[in-house]
Amino acid sequence: MAPAGIGADVEGFHAVAAAAAAGRIRELLVERRLARDERHQQVVASAEASGGAVIYVDDVRDHSVTSAPQGLVARCRAIEPVTLADAVALATPCAVVVLDHVEDPRNVGAIARSAVAAGVGALVVSGDRAAPLGASAFKAAAGTLERLPVVVAHSIADVVRRLEESGVWTVGLDGGADRSLFGLDLLAEPVALVIGAEGKGLSRLVADRVSVLARLPIRGDVESLNASVAASLAMFEIARVRGALH
Amino acid sequence: MAPAGIGADVEGFHAVAAAAAAGRIRELLVERRLARDERHQQVVASAEASGGAVIYVDDVRDHSVTSAPQGLVARCRAIEPVTLADAVALATPCAVVVLDHVEDPRNVGAIARSAVAAGVGALVVSGDRAAPLGASAFKAAAGTLERLPVVVAHSIADVVRRLEESGVWTVGLDGGADRSLFGLDLLAEPVALVIGAEGKGLSRLVADRVSVLARLPIRGDVESLNASVAASLAMFEIARVRGALH
Repeated sequence: MAPAGIGADVEGFHAVAAAAAAGRIRELLVERRLARDERHQQVVASAEASGGAVIYVDDVRDHSVTSAPQGLVARCRAIEPVTLADAVALATPCAVVVLDHVEDPRNVGAIARSAVAAGVGALVVSGDRAAPLGASAFKAAAGTLERLPVVVAHSIADVVRRLEESGVWTVGLDGGADRSLFGLDLLAEPVALVIGAEGKGLSRLVADRVSVLARLPIRGDVESLNASVAASLAMFEIARVRGALH
Repeated sequence: MAPAGIGADVEGFHAVAAAAAAGRIRELLVERRLARDERHQQVVASAEASGGAVIYVDDVRDHSVTSAPQGLVARCRAIEPVTLADAVALATPCAVVVLDHVEDPRNVGAIARSAVAAGVGALVVSGDRAAPLGASAFKAAAGTLERLPVVVAHSIADVVRRLEESGVWTVGLDGGADRSLFGLDLLAEPVALVIGAEGKGLSRLVADRVSVLARLPIRGDVESLNASVAASLAMFEIARVRGALH
């Protein structure tokens, strides 16, 4: 179960516009200064078309989670998570990205954005701590979390086991691995990319369970990359190996 | 001129440890609870070895710019910027990354981290607005801004012109370009990658002046990627075309 409901709070222009287009908005707060702006009028019309209430306020930051909500804050019907079995079927061959406790919501949002851009079919997150899919993640995802199916799992180690049982290769990103992810042939087969937490990397149990550990080919004197950058390089490498980049 | 001095304020474990190793710390604030932690003792010793004063406090957040300084705040001797002519000579063939008003310091820091990891020689930023190289950028760079030479320019359009005059191809990332950056042969030659601002992209003058506009090969229904992700994909593509990824 998603702790607070995926996408219940959405802030920022692109994220709110996408939630409105998806017909999810129950209540939309808009700053009065934007009432005559055409782009914002379109978002308002879209929210009202699906029954959303629109409230004009002086400063939406009085109601926002993010520090720069860009004049728009929406309370929404939550997005229903999908099952792991459904997620596996969403790209052919299977391509999912599994977050092993990536904690920064901006990284989670940027990863979602790259996942959609690279043709990855679904995102798997763990649901055992504070919702990683709140307003900050949705803002960083710039609308793409409306389209990327999400699986909320209790145990990422269990997700890895179930993926393996479904015939999906699980590839853990690990800076200490011998093998480079770039050019890895098995990325052409059904694959799940597993990304560890910022600073800590993959949890021990997950690292032990994945089919393959692979590293990004970075200079030896750099310890690691930003988590969303690392995940994005890996997701685009899947697309490249599959001949899907044009 | 750098507005406030590059790296004058450094916060967060990896960033402060790197500033200490570089001998730049004048004054180091450390949380008392960390006084007996071995990793932090090493940072303290390193700061003291280069003449830095160490002050123990209850909560460094009373003195920090970032919201999560991880118990360490340092006031440092600023890093001297380099000239554009020097920057061009730092990788062979030349590889520099030019930020055309990327405004989010976390993106700037993540780009620096990826630049070092991908073998890019220098970073060019504009100095005409609030310092993009403050504590947030240094924290996101996780120590790499101590090693990546920085050029601070008044005009990015002028930088593009001067790079062209030096025989460096300037490649602007632009989602609307016809040509894909991936596999672009000229990345093997002396090249400068120009990254536009979040949301706005390249400024008109810069887009008009660069040698080539190229896009990342993303799915048509995604407007753009996070700026640091986009820059990183492009920088690693330079390394790939040059056969430098292992």
